[in-house]
Amino acid sequence: MSTPGDEHLRTFDRLWADLDPVGRVGSGGYRRFVWTREDAALREWFAGEAAARRLDLVEDRVGNQWAWWWDGPGSVDDAARAGHRGVVIGSHLDSVPDGGAFDGPLGVVSSFAALDALRAQGVVPAVPVAVVHFVDEEGARFGIACAGSRVLTGALDADRARALTDADGVTYAQALSAAGRDPGRLGRDDEALARVGCFVELHVEQGRALVDLDAPVAVGSDIWPHGRWRFDFPGEADHAGTTRLEDRRDAMLGYAGLVLGAREAAERRGCVATVGKVAVTPGGVNAIPSHVTGWLDARGADETQVEALVADLTRSSAAAGATVTRESWTPTTRLDTDLAARLRGVLGREDELSVPVLGTGAGHDAGILAGAGVPTAMLFVRNPTGVSHSPAEHAEPDDCHAGVDALAACVADLVGEPS
Amino acid sequence: MSTPGDEHLRTFDRLWADLDPVGRVGSGGYRRFVWTREDAALREWFAGEAAARRLDLVEDRVGNQWAWWWDGPGSVDDAARAGHRGVVIGSHLDSVPDGGAFDGPLGVVSSFAALDALRAQGVVPAVPVAVVHFVDEEGARFGIACAGSRVLTGALDADRARALTDADGVTYAQALSAAGRDPGRLGRDDEALARVGCFVELHVEQGRALVDLDAPVAVGSDIWPHGRWRFDFPGEADHAGTTRLEDRRDAMLGYAGLVLGAREAAERRGCVATVGKVAVTPGGVNAIPSHVTGWLDARGADETQVEALVADLTRSSAAAGATVTRESWTPTTRLDTDLAARLRGVLGREDELSVPVLGTGAGHDAGILAGAGVPTAMLFVRNPTGVSHSPAEHAEPDDCHAGVDALAACVADLVGEPS
Repeated sequence: MSTPGDEHLRTFDRLWADLDPVGRVGSGGYRRFVWTREDAALREWFAGEAAARRLDLVEDRVGNQWAWWWDGPGSVDDAARAGHRGVVIGSHLDSVPDGGAFDGPLGVVSSFAALDALRAQGVVPAVPVAVVHFVDEEGARFGIACAGSRVLTGALDADRARALTDADGVTYAQALSAAGRDPGRLGRDDEALARVGCFVELHVEQGRALVDLDAPVAVGSDIWPHGRWRFDFPGEADHAGTTRLEDRRDAMLGYAGLVLGAREAAERRGCVATVGKVAVTPGGVNAIPSHVTGWLDARGADETQVEALVADLTRSSAAAGATVTRESWTPTTRLDTDLAARLRGVLGREDELSVPVLGTGAGHDAGILAGAGVPTAMLFVRNPTGVSHSPAEHAEPDDCHAGVDALAACVADLVGEPS
Repeated sequence: MSTPGDEHLRTFDRLWADLDPVGRVGSGGYRRFVWTREDAALREWFAGEAAARRLDLVEDRVGNQWAWWWDGPGSVDDAARAGHRGVVIGSHLDSVPDGGAFDGPLGVVSSFAALDALRAQGVVPAVPVAVVHFVDEEGARFGIACAGSRVLTGALDADRARALTDADGVTYAQALSAAGRDPGRLGRDDEALARVGCFVELHVEQGRALVDLDAPVAVGSDIWPHGRWRFDFPGEADHAGTTRLEDRRDAMLGYAGLVLGAREAAERRGCVATVGKVAVTPGGVNAIPSHVTGWLDARGADETQVEALVADLTRSSAAAGATVTRESWTPTTRLDTDLAARLRGVLGREDELSVPVLGTGAGHDAGILAGAGVPTAMLFVRNPTGVSHSPAEHAEPDDCHAGVDALAACVADLVGEPS
């Protein structure tokens, strides 16, 4: 049964259905990688929703899309200069390979719906409000997670970003050109950052906690330290049938040792470690591998244990001649304590329940912005199985709607006074 | 210094140079896979060389190319019906990924040069002679080695062949259609086989023996039993950062166990075993693998030990939920003892040296034809390092020329009387 007050929830359902087919593959999951055709469709969708709401669409030097709502005097930049920096909500739209529908898009769609709710309620913000779409959060194509927010804040150097290559050997710079963009423009964008007073990212829960706490929405506390390391194992290509075992240099053996060693070290050190991607040269059934590259993802609540785990594996892989390259590393990120407390207060008032606080092992653009000094908070929407990065990732419609309403309540509170 | 008698060796050098750029990649190796553009160029080259020699080009139902030299009365089929079956020489032109230049092409190029030598010597064959080009010997694209000779002889069912898929999900039937061929025609071809009296395949040595024996050419004895098995490990896709170790079903762990177990079992059982190819779903750095497929190549001098090795690995992988599929299996293949003795006699007369006899761990179309009852022999040309399936695969020009002359001498002997 719909009521006049839930028009924004019907909008949520409509936007959700619009995104459903974009980049969907046979597995039921999604392949939405940066600067591809699917990515272009998602950008167009975002621009269309911004235009439908008469929001000012601004692209920063990285290609992140910002849809600004500001009816006050002067421009958003004028407001920022006057100390009225914006309240920004949003997330990303890209996916891991065969990822789920919710990781990223839930935050962007909820943000548009929350903005509609505020307008329907007649809220007149005292500061600008924006919905943001960060590009390339998952790093599925070029290997560096949160590349959009990292370049924006200077955490990732633009020259290094331009030189990244995908599995086909295409550089980030070439991918930008192919998408009709100027690679030379890519870079840290202090002007764009200066408009941001605070950032609230709503995200589907990853890992399983809220179902046991019987709560649809939580506020985030901190993001575990996490990183990616590339392990390159050398070998010598030769015939699988004619080369004696003692004459072989089989790069796959060192790789297999890494996989099993990572699991063992993670158990020992109370971390999580995963080798989810591998590349083999030449990759023929009857050819001894001359080179194997494995990518390690390692995280944990305790930064020193994660570092020690990587040191363990670097040491054990050295016997196989491996070289180890750190592709990314993010120390423990504390989200803004005051902001989290304020949002808990808002949401506690709303539903008269104590609102859970959750840490997370997943990296987010919110973490990158927090690292750059932006007051940042996260809201998590219940995922009954905790499964994510999989087609099985899920949130119930009622919980999604609860997330929209929670986000709208938070923004209404934040825009009530200049931040 | 060239003499009138070595024109065929200059032809060898010219043909070798013509093939050099086809399918060459950045590594210095080759990617020549069946029913691709590179394959089409190689087929065209073969047809051109056949035409230049006024040979009758016949394609069997599989697409194998036969270039017949027969100036006798009636057709090649008439000769076969009269009991004068042909002497066939040749090999394949395809490669493993980043394979070397010699494995396959050396046999085909040497065959054309040997035919030229016979003509220059004024030999008038009493039976037809053919140079054959077998398609898809390496099985690099569709996973089954010697697919061309297997379908020809009925060792591989045409329906099963048509349903094979490559890494992009393209079926063998679709690849045939895309190459302008009728997939319905694919099948066992007894007519083509009936023309073959015997088959001599010249091949670059794989593994290192002739350099120590100080001999440029050897005669083959037998081909080790060998096969390929696909191990499918199930898992559950989930987020690499948020899923507790105890909640994971990570398909990569079982795979790593297979890799290390294969090496251990091979050492224990005196075989060789290799896992040179792997496919991971979804394959993202921050996603727990939901499915990993590894391909095992196993061979050895002793058939029962190879079978026991695969049984060991099937048992140990069962704990990880693996299903094991045998993709191909070839028992020990004895090449024709009388034919080998005859060729040793011919070559011993030629160079007054004892000619070595070698077994091989590599599979060959010669083995498939031998299995189908065709009297079959092999000649091996010295490879100083023994390395093959690699850009480092090599044979010295003088040894290649010695191979051409050895092959010509053998064919001259074989065509002297109806086989």
